[in-house]
Amino acid sequence: MTTAQNTPVDASRRTVISIDAMGGDRGPAPVVAGIARSAKINPNLHFILHGPAAALEKLVARRRILAGRCDIRDAKDVVTMDDKPSQVLRQGKNTSMWSAVESVRNGESEVCVSCGNTGALMALSMIRLRKLPGVNRPAIAILWPSRSAGGFNVMLDVGADIRADANDLLQYALMGVSYARNGLNLKIPRVGVLNVGTEEHKGRPELREAHDLIAEQSEGGRYDFVGFVEGGDIPGDKADVIVTDGFTGNIALKTGEGTASLIGDLLRQAFRYSPLSRLAQLLAVTSLQRLQKRIDPRQVNGGVFLGLNGTVVKSHGSADALGVSAAVKLAVQLTQSKFSQKIAARLASVTPMTHDEASAEPETE
Amino acid sequence: MTTAQNTPVDASRRTVISIDAMGGDRGPAPVVAGIARSAKINPNLHFILHGPAAALEKLVARRRILAGRCDIRDAKDVVTMDDKPSQVLRQGKNTSMWSAVESVRNGESEVCVSCGNTGALMALSMIRLRKLPGVNRPAIAILWPSRSAGGFNVMLDVGADIRADANDLLQYALMGVSYARNGLNLKIPRVGVLNVGTEEHKGRPELREAHDLIAEQSEGGRYDFVGFVEGGDIPGDKADVIVTDGFTGNIALKTGEGTASLIGDLLRQAFRYSPLSRLAQLLAVTSLQRLQKRIDPRQVNGGVFLGLNGTVVKSHGSADALGVSAAVKLAVQLTQSKFSQKIAARLASVTPMTHDEASAEPETE
Repeated sequence: MTTAQNTPVDASRRTVISIDAMGGDRGPAPVVAGIARSAKINPNLHFILHGPAAALEKLVARRRILAGRCDIRDAKDVVTMDDKPSQVLRQGKNTSMWSAVESVRNGESEVCVSCGNTGALMALSMIRLRKLPGVNRPAIAILWPSRSAGGFNVMLDVGADIRADANDLLQYALMGVSYARNGLNLKIPRVGVLNVGTEEHKGRPELREAHDLIAEQSEGGRYDFVGFVEGGDIPGDKADVIVTDGFTGNIALKTGEGTASLIGDLLRQAFRYSPLSRLAQLLAVTSLQRLQKRIDPRQVNGGVFLGLNGTVVKSHGSADALGVSAAVKLAVQLTQSKFSQKIAARLASVTPMTHDEASAEPETE
Repeated sequence: MTTAQNTPVDASRRTVISIDAMGGDRGPAPVVAGIARSAKINPNLHFILHGPAAALEKLVARRRILAGRCDIRDAKDVVTMDDKPSQVLRQGKNTSMWSAVESVRNGESEVCVSCGNTGALMALSMIRLRKLPGVNRPAIAILWPSRSAGGFNVMLDVGADIRADANDLLQYALMGVSYARNGLNLKIPRVGVLNVGTEEHKGRPELREAHDLIAEQSEGGRYDFVGFVEGGDIPGDKADVIVTDGFTGNIALKTGEGTASLIGDLLRQAFRYSPLSRLAQLLAVTSLQRLQKRIDPRQVNGGVFLGLNGTVVKSHGSADALGVSAAVKLAVQLTQSKFSQKIAARLASVTPMTHDEASAEPETE
């Protein structure tokens, strides 16, 4: 717990994170607790915290580790979970979310983290940060605990946009490959398209079209296309990158989380059942903690918006301090790998491509 | 294990089940083992087994419990997992699947169970058994382990048809309510429509339209409409019946199963980690078995095709003997509650209804 005090601050690695303090289900307290947690672990972090100044000042003052490392930007309004994105775009200039995104737009921060309304955050990010050249629909990517060697798969889109045509799915594949390469250190990521069966004739027409587009680009894109995958492959070891539309991805994500949560509760009940099983639990406690750490959604909290000029991390609305801290950690990783720029280069190399140019390799990435 | 020998056969409760022995991933052996298991538990069961006679006769001869209780119908061809439904309809007359459905059509059996290709089974069932009057798209319903009082929720459609418009979703709601009432003994089932958020403006247009249609019918249909639900509510306690299209439902089902399976494996690994945790596992073994029984997909194996003139149970392609036996158990339950006829009455009462007739209650069910 004293790492921060012992590790010297490295000015060249100073990372400024813009934090939307409001809009989560639990208010600003777990957000401030979460950044304090991150500040302890990483002495190079500096925060710009957006929200009602008076309330935030009180919360920050209680955390000594944040002294001198947290600027507060007053924003009176809050985007609620019920606000429509269009409302927020028209009337949201005084919200903490708008202010937090603005810090990335004007360059004072490299990345923004928010626990707020996903639709509004995506709409604001698109309008204020703008899409990368060639991107039609940005996507939200998450890391899913899996049987793959690295322990996680990337899935996208999990809810930026409920629609996606074949070309959007191709872009998701390319962006997901960049994320897997930079976030999971995979040289040749395996890409699969989520469908109701693995046979090529199955599923909706746009999925069959996407299948062919993504297969065509696999050599130039330096990924291994494994074809259609099913829901069971999301936590599996068949693909590292699972491509789907934001409606299906959102349902799958929440179904997986809900299932994991139910099993965790049933497991606890099972261990409370008899004195012998309670004793067993005591003996097994470290094993169970190891398991919980592996599948706890808070440990990998944070969807990343891909396809924008800047990095935005969407944390769970119900994130606690541990969850917020995990989202901050992810934000720092992505900032350091500069992968937003890499995605831009990747997409620029592919989007205008005709079939004859399929072997043209991008210079960067 | 000797229940069968001690329980007298009740001729009035004799139930004949038509079984497609072929088409599962593991061939006919687990199918025959599964029906032998069911035969032991329930002395009133009789089977008509469809597939290559020579091979099946050998397998059946090895199970003494099946002696005199299992007719074999020779069918040379097998529907494979790769066969397109349209192919099977044109050229599938000699397949075991066709023969198994035909036994329901001609009335010699009340219900059919198959582990084969879902699309082909649904296509065959639709063409040979025909849809109930007023049904546009039949659906596959499953029971999902949940936090609800009865321990399970009904979800449909999990893969009969990848499309569903608002009126189809209304019919799924009504059929799901009948299933919950007859299969889970719920008087006033709670119905939710699966979406990416619970706010009424969210999701695809057909979902918002279905929301209003299902809300309108709730009084006459004697169910409680809880509005939109999210993926996390499928294993939750907010709704007893989860309504969705077959694409989304299939992805959710397989994602949930894959997640449960991953957690189960990680749990076993965790317990193998150290001598202490292995001891803990020994002490906890009954607790863990209790948990496994609750979430094991084989224990509730069997999707039910709703909306047809007859009952068809689709078992997992990879079902083992325990899974096949669970599918047979479900088939018997549904046959005894005669709920296919109840659904017909329910749909007939609602489909031609105008808003003015909304209070007209059906006589039956």
